[in-house]
Amino acid sequence: MKLSRYLPVLDWGRRYSRHTLVNDLVAALIVTIMLIPQSLAYAMLAGLPLQVGLYASILPLIVYAVFGTSRTLAVGPVAILSLMTAAAAGRIAEPGSALYIEAALILAILAGVILLVMGVFRMGFLANFLSHPVVSGFITASGLIIAASQLKHIMGVDASGHNLLELLISLGRQLPQIHVPTLAIGGSSLVFLFWARSQLKPLLTRLGLNTRLATIIARAGPVFAVVASILAVALLQLDEVGVRILREVPTDLPRLSVPSLDPAIWQQLIGSAALIALIGFVESVSVAKTLAAKRRQSVDPDQEMIGLGMSSLAAGLSSGYPVTGGLARSAVNFDAGAETPAAGAFTAIGIALATLFLTPFLFFLPQAVLAATIIVAVLSLVDLAAIRQVFVYSRTDFAAMVVTIGLTLAFGVELGVSAGVVLSLVLHLYNTSRPHFARVGIVPGTHHFRNEDRHDVILSKSVLILRVDESLYFANARFLEDMVYQEIHDRPDIRHLVLMCPAVNAIDASALESLEAINLRLKESGIALHLSEVKGPVMDRLERTHFLDELTGRVFLHQYEALEALDPDCAFSARHAPDGRALDYHI
Amino acid sequence: MKLSRYLPVLDWGRRYSRHTLVNDLVAALIVTIMLIPQSLAYAMLAGLPLQVGLYASILPLIVYAVFGTSRTLAVGPVAILSLMTAAAAGRIAEPGSALYIEAALILAILAGVILLVMGVFRMGFLANFLSHPVVSGFITASGLIIAASQLKHIMGVDASGHNLLELLISLGRQLPQIHVPTLAIGGSSLVFLFWARSQLKPLLTRLGLNTRLATIIARAGPVFAVVASILAVALLQLDEVGVRILREVPTDLPRLSVPSLDPAIWQQLIGSAALIALIGFVESVSVAKTLAAKRRQSVDPDQEMIGLGMSSLAAGLSSGYPVTGGLARSAVNFDAGAETPAAGAFTAIGIALATLFLTPFLFFLPQAVLAATIIVAVLSLVDLAAIRQVFVYSRTDFAAMVVTIGLTLAFGVELGVSAGVVLSLVLHLYNTSRPHFARVGIVPGTHHFRNEDRHDVILSKSVLILRVDESLYFANARFLEDMVYQEIHDRPDIRHLVLMCPAVNAIDASALESLEAINLRLKESGIALHLSEVKGPVMDRLERTHFLDELTGRVFLHQYEALEALDPDCAFSARHAPDGRALDYHI
Repeated sequence: MKLSRYLPVLDWGRRYSRHTLVNDLVAALIVTIMLIPQSLAYAMLAGLPLQVGLYASILPLIVYAVFGTSRTLAVGPVAILSLMTAAAAGRIAEPGSALYIEAALILAILAGVILLVMGVFRMGFLANFLSHPVVSGFITASGLIIAASQLKHIMGVDASGHNLLELLISLGRQLPQIHVPTLAIGGSSLVFLFWARSQLKPLLTRLGLNTRLATIIARAGPVFAVVASILAVALLQLDEVGVRILREVPTDLPRLSVPSLDPAIWQQLIGSAALIALIGFVESVSVAKTLAAKRRQSVDPDQEMIGLGMSSLAAGLSSGYPVTGGLARSAVNFDAGAETPAAGAFTAIGIALATLFLTPFLFFLPQAVLAATIIVAVLSLVDLAAIRQVFVYSRTDFAAMVVTIGLTLAFGVELGVSAGVVLSLVLHLYNTSRPHFARVGIVPGTHHFRNEDRHDVILSKSVLILRVDESLYFANARFLEDMVYQEIHDRPDIRHLVLMCPAVNAIDASALESLEAINLRLKESGIALHLSEVKGPVMDRLERTHFLDELTGRVFLHQYEALEALDPDCAFSARHAPDGRALDYHI
Repeated sequence: MKLSRYLPVLDWGRRYSRHTLVNDLVAALIVTIMLIPQSLAYAMLAGLPLQVGLYASILPLIVYAVFGTSRTLAVGPVAILSLMTAAAAGRIAEPGSALYIEAALILAILAGVILLVMGVFRMGFLANFLSHPVVSGFITASGLIIAASQLKHIMGVDASGHNLLELLISLGRQLPQIHVPTLAIGGSSLVFLFWARSQLKPLLTRLGLNTRLATIIARAGPVFAVVASILAVALLQLDEVGVRILREVPTDLPRLSVPSLDPAIWQQLIGSAALIALIGFVESVSVAKTLAAKRRQSVDPDQEMIGLGMSSLAAGLSSGYPVTGGLARSAVNFDAGAETPAAGAFTAIGIALATLFLTPFLFFLPQAVLAATIIVAVLSLVDLAAIRQVFVYSRTDFAAMVVTIGLTLAFGVELGVSAGVVLSLVLHLYNTSRPHFARVGIVPGTHHFRNEDRHDVILSKSVLILRVDESLYFANARFLEDMVYQEIHDRPDIRHLVLMCPAVNAIDASALESLEAINLRLKESGIALHLSEVKGPVMDRLERTHFLDELTGRVFLHQYEALEALDPDCAFSARHAPDGRALDYHI
């Protein structure tokens, strides 16, 4: 039982049947066809030799089939990690150089080891710190950068830049040099791919195909573009007028190898590798969970870390580069009927065969077409509507998102994400450092206590009841003190202060210190401090201290008991008062 | 009105009377006498020429009198900031060198500017991130290091080390070289000071002095030690047998000057300056608040940042080093009857006069006596009992405290505090990333819902009620999803899930995303999602989104309404059930 937790293959492998085999094989065939151009394109995006993309689609898939917990996740090179690999490797070497390729291997190994360690020590919670707005903003910004970086291939020019602005300016300067035949191929591929993405499926459905098949064919748009453009270039000899083509892609299988062990290089790359690991994991696990939910399967995040970590490690040791689960590819795998991770292993065999026998046919494939497939893929990740939604919902989240997008566009992926994560944390702490407090009174005719600002309530003259709407901890402990003193200072008639704590989920040592200080100071002013509706786990902890002995007042189970004990007249009159206006929703 | 917020002197200055003047003058006289040896001792601890300590006790005090909000805080050099100054300046220059002195000035200026900026932009909340266990642990560890670093002066040997262990080993090696006359003076000073601290006040009270006077005299122990040791050295010519004495302390007043503007030096010091600023502020403001509370005065933390910032800036521009409000000194000022910050200004005049006319009398003062005053002062800050208390109360806080103490002792102040702050944050986020959830049921005969693990409650067969005991945000959004799916998975009969939210103080965009995912997935399983007892501010925000339109269930004001609507039979039987066992405290 224990073993199958770490080797999910033992679980699904036992029940493997002929029927499952057929389904997995069909899915693998379809994913293989789709994955060939994707692997080449993402390797181009990462600035790596194209075969590296294929290599990253062989061993990692087999390893994921053994260790992964998602039944339908398709692992391999993805756009975002390719961009991050290019940024990290580009900082220490020239793209295409031996050191650059080695850096990509080291990134994969480091990312793999980091995921493995986090998975084994069940540190998956660290991935939570990538909040949704940060991830969404980061992906949108990366999508824009990737799309802009590929435009040069569509235009047939050279352009470069370290951020979106520089890229666009550089492209603008090159406009006069546009290579028309390349633009014709790249532009028509773009138009076709965008059309295929939105229009092909409805068209095929209208032509009588069933939905599933129509979906799969529509997703295979890039394959048609690849085949058509190879034929066009070969027949029209467009390479001779300057259309850049792939030429020879090596037909070797990947070799197992260990990259340079120079600790200086590893040290320079470890930060980037950690980000690659976390972002790859967050993306992959959200895809895996979505697909698993559709079939009521489940995904174990800690074991997923192990699966993806082993997979990335395998990529690094077999001449690949960082990999993770891909969104589009996994969806195709799912729609094509994959039932187990074996489909991934079959895909790996398909890619291996393609590497051996199919790459010669890719000789005439224009770079512009690969660039077009990248652009169409990444623009589907750009979600501008999400920015508006987040703006409406929460200014805090919006700030984190906008900073992430802005810094990613201006300074690159790593700074953007890091700043976004730090800002989310700081803003979260800032928000909880100034918690919401409500002065509450009793709703006439009931035992309920509500915020005096939102409801018609009866307030006691001598008992001040403050409801604390936040856990009390170091970030807000001093604020609590200041707020209590302020409230007391404004109300000289108060003899009792009740802190109503139904929403206080924790009180840490700093807050306890503050409560002790409040208790002492109120005592000097002749005011008793009481608590009410303290939660069980919080009370358990308070009982371990002297605070309850020193407390000048009492701890009440219900706020109503507190009012009855401390101001019986007020409780009596509230009980017999005519009902206030009907409660609206807010409590 | 606005102006007097930034210049509190305008407020108290208008009501200044002859009576106040007399009280302030008396307090200033007493504090001056106490401050002279303290200033020299802390300058020695900081590795600076002794007059720098006096300079830091002149202009900064006058400036604080204008901008500070505490009536009785006594600003000047303090032990902890002296240690931090020595550590930071020692990293870039030899102690005593011109660059070292300059580094101390730059630290004061930077710390001042940082406090000013934080004060003006009301960023005082940042100081909250220094949690109580971290500050307490850091002070305890610093106290131990400072005490150990001064032992060499008591023993009359040379010893050094970068951490407590190295220091103690170095001292151990020097044991055979102990200088007996120095040890006789230093040891007897130590014994006298410890005795004065604990025994002198009761003795004086028994002799008939009133408590206030007894307190002040007892606190002036160091002054007696200084005078007696000067007389002893001078009369017995102990300097000629090798007792190290102060010799000449310059009698100039400080000059206004601007230190080196080399940006490289400023950059190297800014991190240390930020820590000095924050720690100085946290310490000072807690002293100021405690004293203010005793007289029902108040302290404005943001204006305090401005006051302390201006004060530190003045120190940096007048040949001083970082200053802040001191604990012992402020207590003496308070006990001696200081009524306004003018007492601080009078103290400054006293120190200036002392610098001009008194320092020649300090010629024979042995370093060992200054060291003894430092040791006695800092050991009173060491609070080992707090470690045990925190251990009993909270393992999280204990971990942060122990790491702070350990790293401060082993690697110095800056790393210790930084690691403590980061660890507190990470542990806080870790704790909230796995929030407490309770499956709740109805208490028979009531409308109350309680945790099934802690109470005898009635559970519905078809309605699962989960009470979420934490704000929902990015760190726990995915945990929420996993937890809900797990609970649903275990209970196939469930048709309704109610998330009971009285303790959910916020739902951020990431958590909203998770709630939407939960709603969608439960819908596919034929389970309706409901919310109950959502807080007003949270509801306000949810109403701005489409979530409530898409919610498969309803939002109930009270949990009881939810049960009545979703499982009337259960609600009916609970209403008519005999009362369960009496509720114990826990809710």
